Amino acid sequence: MSNSPWRLAARTERMNPSVIREILKLTELPGIISLAGGLPSPDTFPVEAMRAATTRVLRDNPREALQYAASEGYAPLREWVAEEMRGHGVAVDASQVLITTGSQQGLDLVGKALIESGSTVAVESPTYLGALQAFTPYEPEFVAIECDDEGPLPEAMAERGRGARFLYVLPNFQNPSGRSIGAARRAAIVESAQKMGLPIVEDNPYGELWFDAEPAPPIASLWREGTIYLGSFSKVLAPGLRLGYAIAPASVMPKLLQAKQAADLHTPGFNQRLVHEVIKDGFLREHVPTIRRRYKAQRDAMQSALAAHLPQSGPHACRWRVPGGGMFFWVELPQGVDAEALLPRAVERGVAFVPGAPFYAGAAMKNTLRLSFVTVAPEAIERGVRALAAALETVR
Amino acid sequence: MSNSPWRLAARTERMNPSVIREILKLTELPGIISLAGGLPSPDTFPVEAMRAATTRVLRDNPREALQYAASEGYAPLREWVAEEMRGHGVAVDASQVLITTGSQQGLDLVGKALIESGSTVAVESPTYLGALQAFTPYEPEFVAIECDDEGPLPEAMAERGRGARFLYVLPNFQNPSGRSIGAARRAAIVESAQKMGLPIVEDNPYGELWFDAEPAPPIASLWREGTIYLGSFSKVLAPGLRLGYAIAPASVMPKLLQAKQAADLHTPGFNQRLVHEVIKDGFLREHVPTIRRRYKAQRDAMQSALAAHLPQSGPHACRWRVPGGGMFFWVELPQGVDAEALLPRAVERGVAFVPGAPFYAGAAMKNTLRLSFVTVAPEAIERGVRALAAALETVR
Repeated sequence: MSNSPWRLAARTERMNPSVIREILKLTELPGIISLAGGLPSPDTFPVEAMRAATTRVLRDNPREALQYAASEGYAPLREWVAEEMRGHGVAVDASQVLITTGSQQGLDLVGKALIESGSTVAVESPTYLGALQAFTPYEPEFVAIECDDEGPLPEAMAERGRGARFLYVLPNFQNPSGRSIGAARRAAIVESAQKMGLPIVEDNPYGELWFDAEPAPPIASLWREGTIYLGSFSKVLAPGLRLGYAIAPASVMPKLLQAKQAADLHTPGFNQRLVHEVIKDGFLREHVPTIRRRYKAQRDAMQSALAAHLPQSGPHACRWRVPGGGMFFWVELPQGVDAEALLPRAVERGVAFVPGAPFYAGAAMKNTLRLSFVTVAPEAIERGVRALAAALETVR
Repeated sequence: MSNSPWRLAARTERMNPSVIREILKLTELPGIISLAGGLPSPDTFPVEAMRAATTRVLRDNPREALQYAASEGYAPLREWVAEEMRGHGVAVDASQVLITTGSQQGLDLVGKALIESGSTVAVESPTYLGALQAFTPYEPEFVAIECDDEGPLPEAMAERGRGARFLYVLPNFQNPSGRSIGAARRAAIVESAQKMGLPIVEDNPYGELWFDAEPAPPIASLWREGTIYLGSFSKVLAPGLRLGYAIAPASVMPKLLQAKQAADLHTPGFNQRLVHEVIKDGFLREHVPTIRRRYKAQRDAMQSALAAHLPQSGPHACRWRVPGGGMFFWVELPQGVDAEALLPRAVERGVAFVPGAPFYAGAAMKNTLRLSFVTVAPEAIERGVRALAAALETVR
């Protein structure tokens, strides 16, 4: 490279290929049951509704759908989102909704608007890897806030979160841990955050995918001025359209909007009109319950398989919680077992998973792993978990 | 805002709402002939072909089109772009093509990968405003390189561009100036850049929209290792799908890809498959000539109107070049006439344009303005230019 005229920005030294992406490549071999993916099941994509909506958009407003459009997003879709959020107790009007190219872009825009090089960002432990990737180019120092089964501990926030630009939380069926934050803990987190003047970025891609009980109201409903809320159509409709949204207080929105304009001018108008056409008459009220039922059956299958095949007591006990929704189980292996070293042995036995270490911004618990239950049928889940248990026996 | 817990990053102080966006709002009044827009004519969007392609994609590969996809882009589309580029003399294979969410995103990713806070970026004078907006959050110092009717002067590059991270150029029918860089000047620019070790970011949204003669081969064909090339489907198909591409040397591509992944995971797969389906069998070879014919007639109408109504000699002479393609005329008004002050008078008379000052990174020539000829019919162009001439008489 000595003759290359290019000099990379220092921030690129911190940017790395997704570890998980590399792992997924290794595990996409034929015959492997992959519990590694983070993808929703394509069987849930409402193809017929998409076809009908596409036909209508290209019949009624083809030129508007194909032309440049407003950076804020398609007005009727913004209005739909605002109404949806009001239904969840968040006082929002359409002017406070910014349509983004997936909620991943929401994370990038938040980083661009808020993170100063060298400033601190507080995250859960573990946390969503895609958020670490989105924030990293803005060169923050991450501070991992200690969590229990209900998410961030308010005492830990007070201790370690002081001075951070914001606390990033994924309160419902978190990726990777599957855990959710209950109503009382949400209130305690907000109380602590308000005392500290620590605003919150609330990321909620999985909230609609609940199986047992509806999640507590969003953190944004408790502290509107102190919360940026990120939502997504990826898990309730289809991720390939890349459609998400950010809801931000008036003190931040203008800068998010300018960042959005600089980033890609606007999210594809065709996609926005298509999704609005699909959902405007209540489609999701019928559709989302079908996803819940399917995923719940798969969640139950995985829980049964884990209970049947993994030791739950004794020196080799594994520990997991049953997620109340979402897409993931998070398994704590016995102390001293490195999930990354376990992976090749599992792949040999025909199953793949994602080791937990990359999800930690701070000290990693290497004896953790993430299992997705949504893309594999119950029968294959059973076989996969059995293979995982067999691999685990070899490292005792 | 004293109670707001949010602290904005320092970079946001430099980010501002697009001046042009604000101007466009003022000029979208009913009855105004807008020569201000930067939008392609929606009459050129191939709605029928889009309909047919959408039907095929949703019939043959609906679930793949709606699922998460590779950050690099849809492989057949990358292959198509690589072949297209090889046809223009740029030695590229598909692995060097990154599909972006419009070429605006290409600019953002370039900024993220290459611009250090406080480093220098060399730009044309005037230059594309969207590029200034994309680069600004990464806090460069812009250096404006002196240009003549053929673009950047190699002497000026050597004098002012030294140490810059890159030179940003839009070589064909530049937005805003309409000018193009000829083959000899391209060679001289590359020679100068190679001597200085100054790499080039070549932005080419308008290259296919030539009316008189095909543009010279891309700068990337002269210096592959030293050029990042940005292309777009916005002007030859439709901007509302937000589909562009970046072609980068191997020393930069991995970081552009990581930046892409962090920014929005991937460009909507549905849109990529749709566009590939439209273009794969040579559609653009038939379609682009129809756009050229339409825009050429409008270009000619504007040239006739300008020649008929604006003074070309004497103390109040205006100066413009006839663009060989693209979408814009760039008019130099008499010395001392401020185009921004002229705008309200023009709007009063029923015509809108964009003042030139915002397009300058350095000292602005305030007596310049940009006129688009693509969205308004020839007859309205004539009326619009006549109104502009009338407004101009009032400020003599």
